[in-house]
Amino acid sequence: MKFEIMRDKLLEGLSDVMKAISQKVTIPILTGIKIEVNEKGLQMTGSDSDITICTSIPVEQDGEQIIQVMESGMIVLQAKFFSEIVRKLPTNEVVIEVTEGMHTHIRSGKSEFHLIGSDPYEYPVLPEVSDEHRMSLPSDLIKSVIRETVFAVSQHETRPILTGVHWELKDGELVCVATDSHRLASRKTRPEQVPEQPFSIVIPGKSLQELNKILPDTLEPVEIIFADQQVLFKTRNVLFYSRLLEGNYPDTSRLIPSEYKTSVTVNGKQLLQAIDRASLLAREDRNNIVRFSAEGGNTLEVSSNSPEVGKVEELIEAQEVTGEELKISFSAKYMMDALKAIDGQNIEVHFTGTMRPFILKATDNDSILQLILPVRTY
Amino acid sequence: MKFEIMRDKLLEGLSDVMKAISQKVTIPILTGIKIEVNEKGLQMTGSDSDITICTSIPVEQDGEQIIQVMESGMIVLQAKFFSEIVRKLPTNEVVIEVTEGMHTHIRSGKSEFHLIGSDPYEYPVLPEVSDEHRMSLPSDLIKSVIRETVFAVSQHETRPILTGVHWELKDGELVCVATDSHRLASRKTRPEQVPEQPFSIVIPGKSLQELNKILPDTLEPVEIIFADQQVLFKTRNVLFYSRLLEGNYPDTSRLIPSEYKTSVTVNGKQLLQAIDRASLLAREDRNNIVRFSAEGGNTLEVSSNSPEVGKVEELIEAQEVTGEELKISFSAKYMMDALKAIDGQNIEVHFTGTMRPFILKATDNDSILQLILPVRTY
Repeated sequence: MKFEIMRDKLLEGLSDVMKAISQKVTIPILTGIKIEVNEKGLQMTGSDSDITICTSIPVEQDGEQIIQVMESGMIVLQAKFFSEIVRKLPTNEVVIEVTEGMHTHIRSGKSEFHLIGSDPYEYPVLPEVSDEHRMSLPSDLIKSVIRETVFAVSQHETRPILTGVHWELKDGELVCVATDSHRLASRKTRPEQVPEQPFSIVIPGKSLQELNKILPDTLEPVEIIFADQQVLFKTRNVLFYSRLLEGNYPDTSRLIPSEYKTSVTVNGKQLLQAIDRASLLAREDRNNIVRFSAEGGNTLEVSSNSPEVGKVEELIEAQEVTGEELKISFSAKYMMDALKAIDGQNIEVHFTGTMRPFILKATDNDSILQLILPVRTY
Repeated sequence: MKFEIMRDKLLEGLSDVMKAISQKVTIPILTGIKIEVNEKGLQMTGSDSDITICTSIPVEQDGEQIIQVMESGMIVLQAKFFSEIVRKLPTNEVVIEVTEGMHTHIRSGKSEFHLIGSDPYEYPVLPEVSDEHRMSLPSDLIKSVIRETVFAVSQHETRPILTGVHWELKDGELVCVATDSHRLASRKTRPEQVPEQPFSIVIPGKSLQELNKILPDTLEPVEIIFADQQVLFKTRNVLFYSRLLEGNYPDTSRLIPSEYKTSVTVNGKQLLQAIDRASLLAREDRNNIVRFSAEGGNTLEVSSNSPEVGKVEELIEAQEVTGEELKISFSAKYMMDALKAIDGQNIEVHFTGTMRPFILKATDNDSILQLILPVRTY
């Protein structure tokens, strides 16, 4: 194998692949990156067995020659060293050559690196994803869907299925739901092109977080192809594979109340900042609980009390308060996560009593719904 | 105590004082900030017993009223909570009031915080520094002196005196030296206004690092006042006290060779980058050693070899190489620290043989000198 490549393009592809690399893998070869070069260009693959990322760099792009292939071939190089070397090379031209015994030479300017590679035939093959189910979504929409749901997945392995986000397609609508059983985040969207059959998959939260880092904030279409155990997100130059979680996701639709006793319309940013301040003194406590009350006209009060430190009282003018008077307590962290996900000018909060879950949504948009279970303190 | 203050000014002063706050203090009251307000303005003090920082905010500055004092007084507030609260207040007007029983109220917009303060009379008094020795240096010069020396202090408490930087005034010249006994950094400067008597003090490295964060990058004069056990750096609004290290600093002048066998003149940045790359594969090893050789005309070679990972070879064209051929090994980290401190276009490296310390300095400037002990590998 021997080729010359532009360092900045190599670095670009490498930084995507590196997102799949973990030092904690049990299969030693997965600490490496598989590099394959042929007349079409360069392919690099990184994997931690749950996630596999594969980037392609074409020989030519936009009329510019990026790679000059002298000899096709494959090698696996230690990801950590290879990426650090490429990052620090002195010039933008890099020659990579593999000689006998997997000796790999990386030359740039007056620098020469010599790494001992590993056998590329020992590297796991890419997962096979039959393309029976596929749909396409704009990249920036996928990023929004991830940001608005993934924070609510469970961090505990006691119910592994809850560490993923449930993506379900029904009647042409894609519903994405995450819950850790104390709160729930839901996002609906109608893809332009949908598969004929309904589907239901659970994608690990961690995979979606890495996917979010790789996808561009553009309208570029991303193809999503899924089979029983794998999902593949496909952009122009990147293949992102993730393992799916096995098992049935709980039916969460019946958790969402449809009748309300108290409803509040308020500026989302004001409420977020007030809760942030109210929780300042409560952060030491395990639960980080704030109290919320709507008892006098349109004035809301958010407060907290930590006997050893002090207390905080925040008043907020709501646009509208309807229904019964209310006193309720909840996790400041969950509330702030939910408000950040909605990120709306004006939001509605609908309560069904002190001990029942309440929901949040934007006043002008039904696609995002956030649900939080209160805490008993009053 | 009751006063109103502009939040941004309060925050500015607070961020300096917070640099002295440590959660690891043994005296509980030092987790707090002492706040004192009188007709002149506001004074805040933070301390970890080694360092004490005291900032003043005047009632009026540049014709603008910053503080309105309704009632003088003092209180000690938990530093962590107080600074977080001030940072997140909703408006730029803050009213702070202490009522009976050290109950402290912080009001801004529709937020009200209530903290339980501590007795200000339990807070340690400021160190007394008699002003028999004093001099003045521009703030940016002090920052340079710190950056060029402090990295070389010892990180180990086996010889406590080496954890500080030695500041010595002799014949009108201030010489600042740090060494961890494997390398040495020295910086000379001639202050415009010097005390009549020579002096010799050892300032803890940690204090100088905090001082560097507080001082502005301007020509503003800083007064330096020192006594037997304390040094005080005084700017317009900040008093920075540091404990001094006790004991005699070793005489380091005899370590510095005055005769050389091999001398090299080379671009400092090129050498720094080459050593950075050459050490990439050696970082796992405890010592992070690179080899350096000057054996063929003006071409220098920097290389390293980590049997399990691979090897690197770097060639650098020097401007000039004089004297004997040389092969030497040294810590890449020490060399990079020294090159960063000199930060010169062209640097000179003078060697006195494979096992003798070598020195680095800028070609056009004698004020900084760096010394490194080699490692035996050849």
